[in-house]
Amino acid sequence: MSPAKGDESMIIVMKPDAVTGDVDNVVERLAEIGAEAHVSVGQVQTVVGAIGDRETIQQLPWEAFAGVERAVPVLKPYKFVSRDFHPDDTVIDVGGVPMGGGHFAAIAGPCAVESRDQLFTAAEAVHKAGAKILRGDAFKPRTSPYSFQGLEEEGLQYLSEAREEFGMPFVAEVLDPRDVDLVASYADLIRVGTRNMANFTLLSELGRQPKPVLLKRGFTATIEEWLNAAEYIYKEGNHRVILCERGIRTFETATRNTLDISAVPVVKGLSHLPIIVDPSHSGGHRELVAPLTRTAVVAGADGFMVDVHHAPETALVDGAQAILPDEFSALMDQVRALASVMNLQL
Amino acid sequence: MSPAKGDESMIIVMKPDAVTGDVDNVVERLAEIGAEAHVSVGQVQTVVGAIGDRETIQQLPWEAFAGVERAVPVLKPYKFVSRDFHPDDTVIDVGGVPMGGGHFAAIAGPCAVESRDQLFTAAEAVHKAGAKILRGDAFKPRTSPYSFQGLEEEGLQYLSEAREEFGMPFVAEVLDPRDVDLVASYADLIRVGTRNMANFTLLSELGRQPKPVLLKRGFTATIEEWLNAAEYIYKEGNHRVILCERGIRTFETATRNTLDISAVPVVKGLSHLPIIVDPSHSGGHRELVAPLTRTAVVAGADGFMVDVHHAPETALVDGAQAILPDEFSALMDQVRALASVMNLQL
Amino acid sequence: MSPAKGDESMIIVMKPDAVTGDVDNVVERLAEIGAEAHVSVGQVQTVVGAIGDRETIQQLPWEAFAGVERAVPVLKPYKFVSRDFHPDDTVIDVGGVPMGGGHFAAIAGPCAVESRDQLFTAAEAVHKAGAKILRGDAFKPRTSPYSFQGLEEEGLQYLSEAREEFGMPFVAEVLDPRDVDLVASYADLIRVGTRNMANFTLLSELGRQPKPVLLKRGFTATIEEWLNAAEYIYKEGNHRVILCERGIRTFETATRNTLDISAVPVVKGLSHLPIIVDPSHSGGHRELVAPLTRTAVVAGADGFMVDVHHAPETALVDGAQAILPDEFSALMDQVRALASVMNLQL
Amino acid sequence: MSPAKGDESMIIVMKPDAVTGDVDNVVERLAEIGAEAHVSVGQVQTVVGAIGDRETIQQLPWEAFAGVERAVPVLKPYKFVSRDFHPDDTVIDVGGVPMGGGHFAAIAGPCAVESRDQLFTAAEAVHKAGAKILRGDAFKPRTSPYSFQGLEEEGLQYLSEAREEFGMPFVAEVLDPRDVDLVASYADLIRVGTRNMANFTLLSELGRQPKPVLLKRGFTATIEEWLNAAEYIYKEGNHRVILCERGIRTFETATRNTLDISAVPVVKGLSHLPIIVDPSHSGGHRELVAPLTRTAVVAGADGFMVDVHHAPETALVDGAQAILPDEFSALMDQVRALASVMNLQL
Repeated sequence: MSPAKGDESMIIVMKPDAVTGDVDNVVERLAEIGAEAHVSVGQVQTVVGAIGDRETIQQLPWEAFAGVERAVPVLKPYKFVSRDFHPDDTVIDVGGVPMGGGHFAAIAGPCAVESRDQLFTAAEAVHKAGAKILRGDAFKPRTSPYSFQGLEEEGLQYLSEAREEFGMPFVAEVLDPRDVDLVASYADLIRVGTRNMANFTLLSELGRQPKPVLLKRGFTATIEEWLNAAEYIYKEGNHRVILCERGIRTFETATRNTLDISAVPVVKGLSHLPIIVDPSHSGGHRELVAPLTRTAVVAGADGFMVDVHHAPETALVDGAQAILPDEFSALMDQVRALASVMNLQL
Repeated sequence: MSPAKGDESMIIVMKPDAVTGDVDNVVERLAEIGAEAHVSVGQVQTVVGAIGDRETIQQLPWEAFAGVERAVPVLKPYKFVSRDFHPDDTVIDVGGVPMGGGHFAAIAGPCAVESRDQLFTAAEAVHKAGAKILRGDAFKPRTSPYSFQGLEEEGLQYLSEAREEFGMPFVAEVLDPRDVDLVASYADLIRVGTRNMANFTLLSELGRQPKPVLLKRGFTATIEEWLNAAEYIYKEGNHRVILCERGIRTFETATRNTLDISAVPVVKGLSHLPIIVDPSHSGGHRELVAPLTRTAVVAGADGFMVDVHHAPETALVDGAQAILPDEFSALMDQVRALASVMNLQL
Repeated sequence: MSPAKGDESMIIVMKPDAVTGDVDNVVERLAEIGAEAHVSVGQVQTVVGAIGDRETIQQLPWEAFAGVERAVPVLKPYKFVSRDFHPDDTVIDVGGVPMGGGHFAAIAGPCAVESRDQLFTAAEAVHKAGAKILRGDAFKPRTSPYSFQGLEEEGLQYLSEAREEFGMPFVAEVLDPRDVDLVASYADLIRVGTRNMANFTLLSELGRQPKPVLLKRGFTATIEEWLNAAEYIYKEGNHRVILCERGIRTFETATRNTLDISAVPVVKGLSHLPIIVDPSHSGGHRELVAPLTRTAVVAGADGFMVDVHHAPETALVDGAQAILPDEFSALMDQVRALASVMNLQL
Repeated sequence: MSPAKGDESMIIVMKPDAVTGDVDNVVERLAEIGAEAHVSVGQVQTVVGAIGDRETIQQLPWEAFAGVERAVPVLKPYKFVSRDFHPDDTVIDVGGVPMGGGHFAAIAGPCAVESRDQLFTAAEAVHKAGAKILRGDAFKPRTSPYSFQGLEEEGLQYLSEAREEFGMPFVAEVLDPRDVDLVASYADLIRVGTRNMANFTLLSELGRQPKPVLLKRGFTATIEEWLNAAEYIYKEGNHRVILCERGIRTFETATRNTLDISAVPVVKGLSHLPIIVDPSHSGGHRELVAPLTRTAVVAGADGFMVDVHHAPETALVDGAQAILPDEFSALMDQVRALASVMNLQL
């Protein structure tokens, strides 16, 4: 699938004061790796187009060559997750719930599983309101070592019981490559959190197990880096990757993070994978959950995921952004009306 | 309107190694300005709550006092534009078109006025499709001094002629305080561009003339700074300020700027002023205009503003983000359907 | 000086699904403007190199053309301020004090002129400690409309008196294009503040008056945008522009802004203009002034500018970042020792 | 060490429209956890100071309580790594080389170990020039799954052989908690890379093994989050943590990341741990390495770490930022001269 000879994969811009020998070195190195050079000599600067296998060319440290000002990659660094590779939308089945290609799914539940009762209260409410997939975490990454870290396997057991009781598949986060088998043995969809998007050993492990993966965007990752992370999982053999936009870090402090809603149509253009939005963790405030969820529906996302808690002021994790069961139910009414305008199957 | 004695306006946190004299200095300075101090002596650090007139207290350089670690403002720095001051939504009339309080308006037209024909072609198309206000600039701020800078007064004349022809009020940008009277003599709504949001002399001039002002968010301004900028205009006597979210600068390069759609509900909570969204300048790509406009409708905005050009590849400014008249017409159909779900008057 | 025919000024990357007609349109448009196209047809994507006059090519909205994925500029958008145009360091005389090309100058004084006494106290101290240029502002841009806005012309008069008294030229800020003549009639060096770096009407005015200009970097401007702003002044005829790095806006909140010290060597590579550093406004805390000033000396800057106040806790503007006269004197001892290692003339 | 009763740990700001019952709920919840409330009723807003154990108070989701506008933490969230806990500089011994408290160390070597020869060539050169610790990685986290991932254990063996040959301890990165024992069995100092700063399971493992840890700042982490990450390691029992500033992600693209040199004096004020700077990975360009290294020496850092490669244009990882052995040798001469001015022991 890699573009073969003939694709201009990299543009190498020489410095204005580069000498002929500098250009020759670049051209020779390209020849050594089986690539061709197109040299355009200008009055100010010389530009070399490198034509050949993208991966081979992009690996070389062109900016370390004498006389090179910068090297500009032309082709995208990922391939399998690219829409160029697979033009149609991918539809992914999560425990019987389809996502992508016009299938829109609501994922809801508590941020963290705190107890069987707390989980079941939330699960019953979100199921009744129309959520198709349950969320709830058993392992939590916490900025402070003094915060609650999750119920671990006990939490996964409660989630499995809730799946039986309400007929909803569930998604849960994995933090450690050593826990991948454990989480995969329980969950229908395994989540990679924002802090682990570039945890490449974890991504590779997830590429070698059978459950679909929900890959959150690193809050400081570009869209290109995010798609590269998806490629890590995909190339190991697991093609069922769902992306989740959850806000990026900016200078604005009125919100926890800045939801990059534009990422939804941008990713839809670049990739065939489904993408959902997490309005709870991006905004960080309860009042923002409904408006941001509505934007997800109309921006072209394939679903959304929200925190629901029956008593947010007692929540052990992220209470400030959890909405109440009644608020979730009212939100689902709006979601259904907007999804109908957008011709989505809910 | 300023909170009088009794409001804890500032929290002054002393350093762990501050001595008693340091705390005394702070307390004495507060007494000198007629404020009270509430001193809470901890085992690690002492905290002083400053109670009194917000503006007087927040002006003093507390972090310059010996022994002070930091000073945390408690009350917001703006007042007239705050919802605390004016709880109901403000509705602003723009040449007969109401905006705010459930009234939603589409603003459309070319980024820059290039010629009478170009303007009239766009104006006719957007009017037919349902836009209520025409956009088009006669003065353009350009990053490069070698770019097209606008038709100046000639452009304003064409805009006035289009207003007559199609019965649409228009919005145009002003760049220089010396041009305020000129632009105000033609336009129905005067725009402050993103680069001028903190041009305080320009803001003050606009506060002293009668036309409503469309204040774009600085692409690097926090929401608090933006509301402070609106306060500059408001306090000079012009209470007709409409805010416009247009994307902020982040590390993401796939889009021109990152549309901060969360700013819409955040501003709605903080201020009574109308707020609209500019999906063209935030995304910077034609394909993003429709999805981002849809998010504006459902996020709670009072309108949106888009660039429309009949031949974007010939546009002198920002052609990459202009949509075609037909695309605008199709977008308006979606906007109407979504506005109906949101109970907005279009 | 503009690169003529023969320079590959822009790389136009076509979409993978672009059709032949799309490429033809691009090639024809290039021909119309007198440029040549080098077309490289790949297996995945076609790439068009546009060869010809940079300014003509870079003005066209290539991303608005059907089938174009993106357009990547190869040559820099500025020319006169570029080191390619003028390879040697420019040395600028500020009221008798040389800056640039190995000449290093300390600029110090109060942030704002508050009174004649306050100014003279600071001026005497910084002069004695070795500062060569006095700073002090008569016009202040303030985020809040309720803050002190400066003494205006009275402040400029005090600065002129201090110049006579201590034999130091001075720098002062101008905010409004209408005040350029006034400030130019008093000051030896006119400062453009961070919020006005992209105030193009102000820049153009400054390009048409005879005093040298100190151009602060916009706290949200890229280095390229900053050099473009300098180009605005330069191309109007004023070639005496000094750049000032003063911190950029990032997500970090421990400092007021993040001093981008790397900008010093980067700018030195790109431009022949002198560059100085403002450690006071970037850090925002008194304790950071000395370490950041030291970094300026060794990073290759041509000077620095710091706020000095005899009683920071009474300062009307930015007291938290002002250092005391004694602290400035101790700092100058360190600066001299480091400048000696760096072979700078102080 | 935790501040007991009496410290005002959190300021809870109520909304202007909060009712008495809302304030009562907050006060009651504080009483339940053994904390006291200081209530300040203003004309606009009520402010509650929460006095008691910091960790207990800061864990509760105050912003989820009805009527709460925001909760502002007063005390820092970390304790053991804080200078309040341990006022003197910590000196850490790395295989016989002291770092911190005036002891300054140069760390140098190739980014990645590519072969025994490549490593030994670099090691010999940096040893001769005065580096005290060797760098070289056997495991590499790569953004693209198609890039070179490291020699793994073979690389660690070569590093151990170089240690014997040149008498230099070495630092190497660990990526996966499963590799901690392996890396710890070879390396003198274990590095946590920027992408793993918030990999809390990895941090906890490193807290339970005996080798000192070099903790790079996440390129998107605030200083407070970074110190929290150090606290994770420290509280597990490993008190030998060295911090490494390596640049943060900003909007500027002229450099790979923006070196936050201010972080050095800020961290020195907040923490007793040693801190070094990595000028290679922050700047990303060879020409920036020398100036940025010089800033590290004078900003107060306890050392620096640079990539050195005898043939950067052949490097498998990050060649563009590697300097040549001769350049490193010249840089060390400058470092020695500046360290002498700063009274550092090299």
